[in-house]
Amino acid sequence: MPVKLLFIGDVIGKPGREALSRELHRIVDRHMVDLVIANGENAAGGFGLTEETAQDLFKCGVQMITSGNHIWDKKDALEYIKREDRIVRPANYPDGTPGKGTTIVKTPGGVKVGILNLEGRVFMNNLDCPFRCADKEIAKLKEETPIIFVDFHAEATSEKVSLGWYLDGRVAAVIGTHTHVQTADERILTAGTAYMTDAGMTGSFDSVIGVKKEEAILKFVTQRPSKFEVAKKDIRINAVAIEVDERTGLALNIERINIACG
Amino acid sequence: MPVKLLFIGDVIGKPGREALSRELHRIVDRHMVDLVIANGENAAGGFGLTEETAQDLFKCGVQMITSGNHIWDKKDALEYIKREDRIVRPANYPDGTPGKGTTIVKTPGGVKVGILNLEGRVFMNNLDCPFRCADKEIAKLKEETPIIFVDFHAEATSEKVSLGWYLDGRVAAVIGTHTHVQTADERILTAGTAYMTDAGMTGSFDSVIGVKKEEAILKFVTQRPSKFEVAKKDIRINAVAIEVDERTGLALNIERINIACG
Amino acid sequence: MPVKLLFIGDVIGKPGREALSRELHRIVDRHMVDLVIANGENAAGGFGLTEETAQDLFKCGVQMITSGNHIWDKKDALEYIKREDRIVRPANYPDGTPGKGTTIVKTPGGVKVGILNLEGRVFMNNLDCPFRCADKEIAKLKEETPIIFVDFHAEATSEKVSLGWYLDGRVAAVIGTHTHVQTADERILTAGTAYMTDAGMTGSFDSVIGVKKEEAILKFVTQRPSKFEVAKKDIRINAVAIEVDERTGLALNIERINIACG
Amino acid sequence: MPVKLLFIGDVIGKPGREALSRELHRIVDRHMVDLVIANGENAAGGFGLTEETAQDLFKCGVQMITSGNHIWDKKDALEYIKREDRIVRPANYPDGTPGKGTTIVKTPGGVKVGILNLEGRVFMNNLDCPFRCADKEIAKLKEETPIIFVDFHAEATSEKVSLGWYLDGRVAAVIGTHTHVQTADERILTAGTAYMTDAGMTGSFDSVIGVKKEEAILKFVTQRPSKFEVAKKDIRINAVAIEVDERTGLALNIERINIACG
Ligand SMILES: [Fe+2]
Ligand SMILES: [Fe+2]
Ligand SMILES: [Fe+2]
Ligand SMILES: [Fe+2]
Ligand SMILES: [Fe+2]
Ligand SMILES: [Fe+2]
Ligand SMILES: [Fe+2]
Ligand SMILES: [Fe+2]
Repeated sequence: MPVKLLFIGDVIGKPGREALSRELHRIVDRHMVDLVIANGENAAGGFGLTEETAQDLFKCGVQMITSGNHIWDKKDALEYIKREDRIVRPANYPDGTPGKGTTIVKTPGGVKVGILNLEGRVFMNNLDCPFRCADKEIAKLKEETPIIFVDFHAEATSEKVSLGWYLDGRVAAVIGTHTHVQTADERILTAGTAYMTDAGMTGSFDSVIGVKKEEAILKFVTQRPSKFEVAKKDIRINAVAIEVDERTGLALNIERINIACG
Repeated sequence: MPVKLLFIGDVIGKPGREALSRELHRIVDRHMVDLVIANGENAAGGFGLTEETAQDLFKCGVQMITSGNHIWDKKDALEYIKREDRIVRPANYPDGTPGKGTTIVKTPGGVKVGILNLEGRVFMNNLDCPFRCADKEIAKLKEETPIIFVDFHAEATSEKVSLGWYLDGRVAAVIGTHTHVQTADERILTAGTAYMTDAGMTGSFDSVIGVKKEEAILKFVTQRPSKFEVAKKDIRINAVAIEVDERTGLALNIERINIACG
Repeated sequence: MPVKLLFIGDVIGKPGREALSRELHRIVDRHMVDLVIANGENAAGGFGLTEETAQDLFKCGVQMITSGNHIWDKKDALEYIKREDRIVRPANYPDGTPGKGTTIVKTPGGVKVGILNLEGRVFMNNLDCPFRCADKEIAKLKEETPIIFVDFHAEATSEKVSLGWYLDGRVAAVIGTHTHVQTADERILTAGTAYMTDAGMTGSFDSVIGVKKEEAILKFVTQRPSKFEVAKKDIRINAVAIEVDERTGLALNIERINIACG
Repeated sequence: MPVKLLFIGDVIGKPGREALSRELHRIVDRHMVDLVIANGENAAGGFGLTEETAQDLFKCGVQMITSGNHIWDKKDALEYIKREDRIVRPANYPDGTPGKGTTIVKTPGGVKVGILNLEGRVFMNNLDCPFRCADKEIAKLKEETPIIFVDFHAEATSEKVSLGWYLDGRVAAVIGTHTHVQTADERILTAGTAYMTDAGMTGSFDSVIGVKKEEAILKFVTQRPSKFEVAKKDIRINAVAIEVDERTGLALNIERINIACG
């Protein structure tokens, strides 16, 4: 029996959450999804995640939340993340970081899926090596299940593609997040891992990667600090569906999803 | 009469050039292309452009070559670029830079198309403002033709999307290059400009953005300098076709192209 | 008659301002200073400048305030800077930036001194070329006076030293700011320009470049965002005194100043 | 009995090596130095270190060579560094990196001195955490000797000062390298560790941080890649002498050294 994972790209603020509230159940039905994972690092007003916004996502049908560099933006997250099993932050943050970088979740059908969140280092924070961290965390997850999903939250395409190949054959999928632009390179690599450089974002597309476009342009043109507000029009859901062989933990299919929801 | 532009993402070394040699005429026929533009910054061994490799591209049917940060990698380019009208380098390099940042080319049907090449600044070189440079260069090109194509060679999605919106309604297309990964966000913006964050690359996909994957991974894992060689297997052509209204210079259609050629 | 300029490195918050209030008149007397210039980008709580904190500096005896990347941190500065002639911000911010990048000030003895503020681009904002900007601004200032002082607010030593040599013989002094650590390389370059890579800071030295050391360390160790508060103990004034030939506008002497004031 | 350490800032190419050959014995005599350590990452033509150039440094009287990001520039170093006990590279390179990050050396008087080399991460390579690495390596060195010298090869002043305070009271000295500009902030921190943000460089000062100034300026002004040659005039030795209490391993004195040698 294949297991169907749905992974939703960075959810941006209330517009993103509302879109999921309206549409997610339909996507789940249409694609016969067993497990819904969403990147929630921008779910709270575009910057960070709070208990309230995470609960919002869970109510929509999200079962697991991954994150990235913005997970620390809201101070509450530091406490909340410790007691909420359904949220992971990048595993390659240093020892002592609140929360955890991996988890194992069960589908309604009883299949265990390991989730691993990693953050890139090129043009980003100075974290532990995501490649070595993956080696270590995957070994531990494999003791529990052959099926592992990796959200690699990173900027540089070279680092993302490299991790994809590095983990090829060892995990079900390596899907990138962080750039908020969906890439068209979804494929199954030669040893069986589904790969896609970026899942994109779920939020306003009448925007610059989710924030009001006038404010983003102003920052580039003035080179002065700028406030950023979440944009509200032309909402789309960016996601990717991955079918995994339950026995081998390798990918059978990968499908890019981009749904306009007004 | 609409004008059909074909823009080919960064051509990577000999494998990329050979793929174009075999397939480009077919793509041109199928899409009834009037003008072929290709980003050539990696055409010579993956780093830079030489007279010989540029001639190779012209022989394949490329009419105009755009470029980016790698255009200076081969020393010969500095001289060659001065006498070759069919190559542009980013217009926002400082005054005194060899070559030019814009040009006007005629389709076989006699329609003038302005070409503008720009380079981003986020995580890249310290160049003049691409937004202001675009204002200035577009004004000049508009004296000659309403049809302007922009290759924005940049890293950060925020900068690329911002320029798209900034130029919306003023040019036919803003197409990104440099990340070597094709994005799935091609669309016509609200005021009529075709936009796509990255056209992708033309070269080996059994690679990390065109170079041998073992070498790229080694660099990330060791953090030591590494040589990079062009990879050779699983060649694909990444491009985008844009239909432009000859009279208004705005886009009628944009279509992403990704062709496997072995 | 030589003119004696005193330039004070980045003043950090209230501790820095109070130190100047107590000690500046003594330094002015001892060094027979004609003109006091201070970098004020961190004068307001460590981040930015307000009308109130600027007035504080003027009351201490500062006649001109230069700045840098932090000048925009306090929103009020955007308006204030337009009507206050005694503040400059880096001249190589884009056209349309509030305030101005150069000014001419008269010493009590009636000698005109041109002040030019520039910001580096390496590891910093994406600004106009400071080298070309300097060429242009110096030409204008030279119509008024042969004596020009340059505060080059920059991170990379290579960029700072390069600008020093580039302007050697054309200005009285190129003094760096921004790193908050005083360098020991003060000298007069071969064509007569006084140069020093960084003037240092005026504030707490029981700190990490002015902020509480526990908070700075925490940020490096956790890689999470962190608040920064101005530190308060072990206050020192970092400055540099430059003697300039009134006729040639070239430097006769440069002296590094580092005064502990408790 | 105090132990006197002399640490020499980045030695730049042949001019730097020749200056040491002529002057080092004199400095050693004058300061009654027990152990000479030099940063050799630029000793071979400005980029990297070879067996020949390292031997040159040893002949001058250098007993231990530390390094930094440039240590990998010359391919030979990868092999040489494995069999040469007197060279360390930053300890926070990943597991499997050739060479070692710490060593213990004996002064002629028989006192053991632990040497730890670290590299910063801000604006540099993506390495392991230098703070945690220091914790671990210092614990090991402390089993052998109370006297530990740290060369922290880093760019950002904030990271360097932070490590100084982080290790205060645990090591004899934290001395920075990499910027090639000597800082004027040498001091003994409150718990007894000698600290200085940058030791400076040993090489040509008629240069931009050791390379020909025309070439460095050209790079900033053109934003194109540029070759860099070692400059040859106005040679100076930048160093720092630290007196350490043999029993406590804490610093008794720190003295900045800057010697012009023609
Ligand atoms: Fe995000
Ligand atoms: Fe992110
Ligand atoms: Fe490229
Ligand atoms: Fe590029
Ligand atoms: Fe500052
Ligand atoms: Fe600054
Ligand atoms: Fe160096
Ligand atoms: Fe270095």
